[in-house]
Amino acid sequence: MSAEIICIGTELLLGDILNTNCHYLAQELASLGIPHYYQTVVGDNLKRIHQVIEVATQRSSILVFTGGLGPTPDDLTTEAIASFFTTPLEEKPEIIAAIKAKFASVGREMTANNRKQALIPVGAKILPNPTGTAPGMIWQISYSGKTLTIMTFPGVPSEMHRMWRETAVPFLKSQGWGQNIIYSQMLRFRGIGESALATKVEHLFALTNPTVAPYASKGEVRLRISAKAKSETEAMALIKPVAEEIQNITGLDYFGKDEDTLEAVVSKLLRDRQEAVAVAESCTGGGLGSILTAIPGSSEYFLGGIIAYSNQVKMALLAVSEETLDQWGAVSHPVAQQMAQGAKQKLNTDWGIGVTGIAGPDGGTETKPVGLVYIGLASPDGQVASFEYRFGKDRERSLIRYLSSYQALDLLRRKLLTL
Amino acid sequence: MSAEIICIGTELLLGDILNTNCHYLAQELASLGIPHYYQTVVGDNLKRIHQVIEVATQRSSILVFTGGLGPTPDDLTTEAIASFFTTPLEEKPEIIAAIKAKFASVGREMTANNRKQALIPVGAKILPNPTGTAPGMIWQISYSGKTLTIMTFPGVPSEMHRMWRETAVPFLKSQGWGQNIIYSQMLRFRGIGESALATKVEHLFALTNPTVAPYASKGEVRLRISAKAKSETEAMALIKPVAEEIQNITGLDYFGKDEDTLEAVVSKLLRDRQEAVAVAESCTGGGLGSILTAIPGSSEYFLGGIIAYSNQVKMALLAVSEETLDQWGAVSHPVAQQMAQGAKQKLNTDWGIGVTGIAGPDGGTETKPVGLVYIGLASPDGQVASFEYRFGKDRERSLIRYLSSYQALDLLRRKLLTL
Repeated sequence: MSAEIICIGTELLLGDILNTNCHYLAQELASLGIPHYYQTVVGDNLKRIHQVIEVATQRSSILVFTGGLGPTPDDLTTEAIASFFTTPLEEKPEIIAAIKAKFASVGREMTANNRKQALIPVGAKILPNPTGTAPGMIWQISYSGKTLTIMTFPGVPSEMHRMWRETAVPFLKSQGWGQNIIYSQMLRFRGIGESALATKVEHLFALTNPTVAPYASKGEVRLRISAKAKSETEAMALIKPVAEEIQNITGLDYFGKDEDTLEAVVSKLLRDRQEAVAVAESCTGGGLGSILTAIPGSSEYFLGGIIAYSNQVKMALLAVSEETLDQWGAVSHPVAQQMAQGAKQKLNTDWGIGVTGIAGPDGGTETKPVGLVYIGLASPDGQVASFEYRFGKDRERSLIRYLSSYQALDLLRRKLLTL
Repeated sequence: MSAEIICIGTELLLGDILNTNCHYLAQELASLGIPHYYQTVVGDNLKRIHQVIEVATQRSSILVFTGGLGPTPDDLTTEAIASFFTTPLEEKPEIIAAIKAKFASVGREMTANNRKQALIPVGAKILPNPTGTAPGMIWQISYSGKTLTIMTFPGVPSEMHRMWRETAVPFLKSQGWGQNIIYSQMLRFRGIGESALATKVEHLFALTNPTVAPYASKGEVRLRISAKAKSETEAMALIKPVAEEIQNITGLDYFGKDEDTLEAVVSKLLRDRQEAVAVAESCTGGGLGSILTAIPGSSEYFLGGIIAYSNQVKMALLAVSEETLDQWGAVSHPVAQQMAQGAKQKLNTDWGIGVTGIAGPDGGTETKPVGLVYIGLASPDGQVASFEYRFGKDRERSLIRYLSSYQALDLLRRKLLTL
């Protein structure tokens, strides 16, 4: 029993898009312990899709398809699967109703070509798509003396992920997969580099169960602790002492685990203290506010902010002084402090954050290069501090803005934990 | 004559890495005009690699392998190819010399296991690797009555790219490829669904040169026009009339082509008119400002904005009236209008945008469900309009916020084009 991933779409053959779906499904199959030996990509061509199914049926028993479920004539996946197995298609009224409801909810009419998305082979079950018009299917069928399981998903990653999580995983577990588990915990760090962190915990890399491995991502370093066990409880008993040891070694650089994003951690700290924050953003242009409000219920601790992109707005809405701007420039310690203070006062909050910097690619000078960012932090105790960062003049604008927003959040987190 | 990409590596099956090599090679094959119908991924397993080669020889004639050329026992690519074609391996002294020189340059000795990297099948030519220890090969061989071309590359992307550019491309051109190029233009649309757009331009899907194909992505639909020709000029001459016909049919729903993002298009329109915009954001929390300032030089047309997450801030900083909030609620036409107007007045700009909505997952009611968003637009002519959207109560918070920001930008674009 092993799985094969089959991605259908001429855009993959032309190199228009990167095949992230295959990567996602590979990780998911691995975490369920489903053996998976082949991946195939083929274009929107009936004969070639048939050829790929023919090969897959000989070597795999769980065929996971993505792509080709759309309403247009080049979307052939369902039709190709049905005709390969010489099974007629039937129109499912519940799919038609769901598509109509989706169109109605955005004030549009279903078009005639969506009707083909309601066709699935006789005997297959609908794999619901809660967010898009293209449902998939789960079909178990006897072929050449073995039982095949066929699953189809649309190519849109967000739709595919949700369908996988909500329907495919429970189905596969009901079939007995995912019993012997590998359970992992990801510890997350800010303000320390990958090699510095690795040096601190080097003695743990030799462990075999659990194992410890480092990963670096944008502005963040992670350590993954993985245990193999019969149950989550048993795995956690192996993981816990190692996680605790790492947290003791790393102190404030550790900020959370698994799904604990930095914004979620800061959000929890603010909620626990029943305190609110306001932002004053220049180079991030609203990005910090956007990250803070990504958390549902963020209105409990976030009232708003000022996007002060121009100096006029810094003066008019944040009471940054013209003198300070003239003397120090907009990208400076005192302006970051006044922005933080201005946000706190104007919105009458406990905390204020100000971010001002040079995101590039233009606007840098010898003394104030691209990547120079000042972050001001006004605290409930009345203190205002500011911090200088140099994110590197060769870094991209989007990365400098991203790092600035997360650095501001991390400053707030550290202060919340130590005040 | 067509190519197949075969990527070898268990790490791809485990989902440890994203298959960027396949993406790179797909783009390269397309730009050389080499037809390419299949991609296969298989693990480091001799029997399965043989099975994959067997299938590929039946359907493809240029087999491009990546991965599995390293010095360790799980690197099997060369050995598997040689044994499939029952051809002995021979050690190439020039490869041994090159590997030794590479080790010497970093002050090390070649290790014994590198010796296997000097083996290639009798009759194959070395495909030099200027940066790493693993060379590839180019091998033309008769098999089952046809001529196969086999090329192998290491899995390290930077090494593979350089080997492809410096040796593989000149070789393929010497074989007659790359004379005809495929040139594409991507037309981009907003405010129309994939199926509705497809219906409007259905007659063009039957074209053969150029071809027209639809793609859907988050909130955007695209049509790709691809022409095969001897030169870019000739290709463009084929593409241009089709692109113009599509633009005529689709009117304002067409917003740009290729790298024209919506924010870049809006930015250009504002710059051309020397007009500035300010934002007032509730549910997007700064996301719209962040998108507008993602463009370098955005300070020319973006001065700032107010993130008015709470009603207090809407009243205090945007002069939204308490009466209106009480009577209509924060998520309503009049509040969106007052926010747009407030941003425009407070920041003294030509345009003001206000966004207020329910991003979820909580906060929805029967009459005001999650996904309900109002966008207000204040224009230089003094008019203020507002628009209602229902992005769907089952959509995720992040998607509702994303669609809200881009919908606001699209409203601004349409008004800029028609005012």
